[in-house]
Amino acid sequence: MSPESNLPPWWARPDLDYRRGRLHFQNTDLPATVSESGTPAFLYSADRMSANLQRLDQALSGRSVPHRIYYAMKANRFPPLLAHLRSLGSFGVDVCSPGELRLALQTGFEPSEIVFTGTCLSDRDLEILAAHPEVLINCDSLSVIRRLGKLCPGRSIGLRINPQLGFGYTHALVYSGETPTKFGIYAGRFEEALELAAGSDLHVAGLHFHCGSGLLGSQQDIMQGLLDKAAWFLDRCPQARSLDIGGGLGIPMASGDQPLDLQAWSRTIADFAAPRRLTILLEPGDYAVKDAGILLVKVTMVEEKGGVTFVGVDAGYNIQNLRVFYDLPFVIVPLEISPETQWRTVTVAGNINEALDLWAENIPLPASLGEGDVLAILNVGGYGSASASNHCLRGEFGEVLL
Amino acid sequence: MSPESNLPPWWARPDLDYRRGRLHFQNTDLPATVSESGTPAFLYSADRMSANLQRLDQALSGRSVPHRIYYAMKANRFPPLLAHLRSLGSFGVDVCSPGELRLALQTGFEPSEIVFTGTCLSDRDLEILAAHPEVLINCDSLSVIRRLGKLCPGRSIGLRINPQLGFGYTHALVYSGETPTKFGIYAGRFEEALELAAGSDLHVAGLHFHCGSGLLGSQQDIMQGLLDKAAWFLDRCPQARSLDIGGGLGIPMASGDQPLDLQAWSRTIADFAAPRRLTILLEPGDYAVKDAGILLVKVTMVEEKGGVTFVGVDAGYNIQNLRVFYDLPFVIVPLEISPETQWRTVTVAGNINEALDLWAENIPLPASLGEGDVLAILNVGGYGSASASNHCLRGEFGEVLL
Repeated sequence: MSPESNLPPWWARPDLDYRRGRLHFQNTDLPATVSESGTPAFLYSADRMSANLQRLDQALSGRSVPHRIYYAMKANRFPPLLAHLRSLGSFGVDVCSPGELRLALQTGFEPSEIVFTGTCLSDRDLEILAAHPEVLINCDSLSVIRRLGKLCPGRSIGLRINPQLGFGYTHALVYSGETPTKFGIYAGRFEEALELAAGSDLHVAGLHFHCGSGLLGSQQDIMQGLLDKAAWFLDRCPQARSLDIGGGLGIPMASGDQPLDLQAWSRTIADFAAPRRLTILLEPGDYAVKDAGILLVKVTMVEEKGGVTFVGVDAGYNIQNLRVFYDLPFVIVPLEISPETQWRTVTVAGNINEALDLWAENIPLPASLGEGDVLAILNVGGYGSASASNHCLRGEFGEVLL
Repeated sequence: MSPESNLPPWWARPDLDYRRGRLHFQNTDLPATVSESGTPAFLYSADRMSANLQRLDQALSGRSVPHRIYYAMKANRFPPLLAHLRSLGSFGVDVCSPGELRLALQTGFEPSEIVFTGTCLSDRDLEILAAHPEVLINCDSLSVIRRLGKLCPGRSIGLRINPQLGFGYTHALVYSGETPTKFGIYAGRFEEALELAAGSDLHVAGLHFHCGSGLLGSQQDIMQGLLDKAAWFLDRCPQARSLDIGGGLGIPMASGDQPLDLQAWSRTIADFAAPRRLTILLEPGDYAVKDAGILLVKVTMVEEKGGVTFVGVDAGYNIQNLRVFYDLPFVIVPLEISPETQWRTVTVAGNINEALDLWAENIPLPASLGEGDVLAILNVGGYGSASASNHCLRGEFGEVLL
């Protein structure tokens, strides 16, 4: 039940909801599982991750768009989760560093199932990539084209373009908007890049863009705008047979957010790809895992300070930094509720000695909440453990694939 | 030479400056040391760390203020650096988690040389602390007083107060300003805290506050204001014989910043402490190590994109996140210059696949800069390696204590 009514909470879905007052996630009774998982602990739903990827797959298949989907490992590289992905058999991985490439290979992905999309690559990075000729490298700069040409002439590559149009949950997540970014090759230097590739005996097999994050609702105008921009590049590069449209697909983060309209999204893509006979590549990361992960934390303090009720918990921003980096809201809920639950407004704070270490401000939690109770933080499957630090030597947490 | 003139750069000091055009740090010729350190690599000056701590020590000794200085380990816990600190013999450590406590003990610090100042502490945290009765715990909440009283009655403690006055390089670094924070005990509940401590058989040996970061120049009004606030608490707690004034001392981060006026600072403290016969405790972290650390990074790309010249380097914000968290400026300089050096304005970008991964925007660097050249990022000794993550599996770096 949500604090405001007897309706199900906005985030409830068949695999994540209260059953007889107890929060369940992928059929796991969370109040019962805490003794095993401990806190803080990330719990991931393998089924939800599969469903998220298959939803995209089906949306494009339903429109007969030739496509391949590569999970962007940087969002979450928990080995059992990668192994699960591998077991599905129909998805590749997108990697962005030699370390991620190594992990993908060790997880069992074939080089031909891996795309590499990195930035500011060193010579050492390129030497490692050169040893894996079947990995498709999306070259992000003229510098990489030039150096890769010397290392492995004859190779097929992708070119990351910068369409100068971006979007994001927040401004900091815009990868290719009006402000110039480090990413990709701009229109003004595209001909030069093509000449350099040709002169370096590199075959441009496809183009790539990644423009932001958090595409929601019916923001098809954004996707349409990006494709219109990409058309300019594609017209100048007829040998490119694929277009990699990156990631950036969003999920609802707060009440009222509309999920991405996949019907409209796939239609926009199909209408663009079909006449050009393009294969569409997709690199979802956060979209695949964000709502497939929750974090269990234990309440260590409930105390009024300066007029605010602070709920302290045994985990800090160092293990999930999306709020401090991007001001994205966390949804924090109790493991058990009842129709009689009384709610009060609190601020949830982490155990790191920094003022910014707050999980959420002014959210409703049960008035009965006390030390030792456990809370679930939803939608934290992406960019949690993968970018966690050991700040204050508070970097310990569990991870469980359900 | 600075880009603007033939004058020494604003950050130059005897142990960090160009000699015959080559950047030296604690008598180490940096261009010559790169082959040994590799990149990215943090280089720390043991001498500078000592000097920073001794400067504070002498400022207080010069005014006959009884005091003890505890280095706040969270700023940098590189083991050789901690061992160096230990070898100095005259400084303790401030820790904020059981892990840091363990590391302090393993480094050879006696329990009596350790203060613990943590927040949102779990029962497990307190059980570990209870096993070390000589560690002074600055209790941050009534909850901790209550639980600690049950675990170790008879113990001496500190009380962290919140004076509702703060300061910071930026708003996010204000720990006790107008906005209520999770830190400390507010005036409105101080009597209650004292009664709880007395009732729990805990002896309040001292009070503690930590209010922000980046105290610079002659901001004595801030320190005076904090002490005036602390007086209210001290008047109600005559058994407190020490006042821990935390950390938060700043160093110049940009041209024009004035260093902290230690003469005025120590006079303010002495005038307050002497009539009250207080021992002053101090917990400098960043102040001790910030300007004792530089980061060497290798240029991987110099390329014009969208009208901006991007200098890519082989390290990202995941190993030094003060800019992305707090918008603090990094000073980035070449290892070699000459009177003939021509400068141009560039943006320095890291190798993480996120748009916010920029080291500095619109700064001057040599026009001749090319791939393979090495740059030094100054003032990064604090909150670099200690809070680094392995995001994108790009978390590798070297660390060298000079």
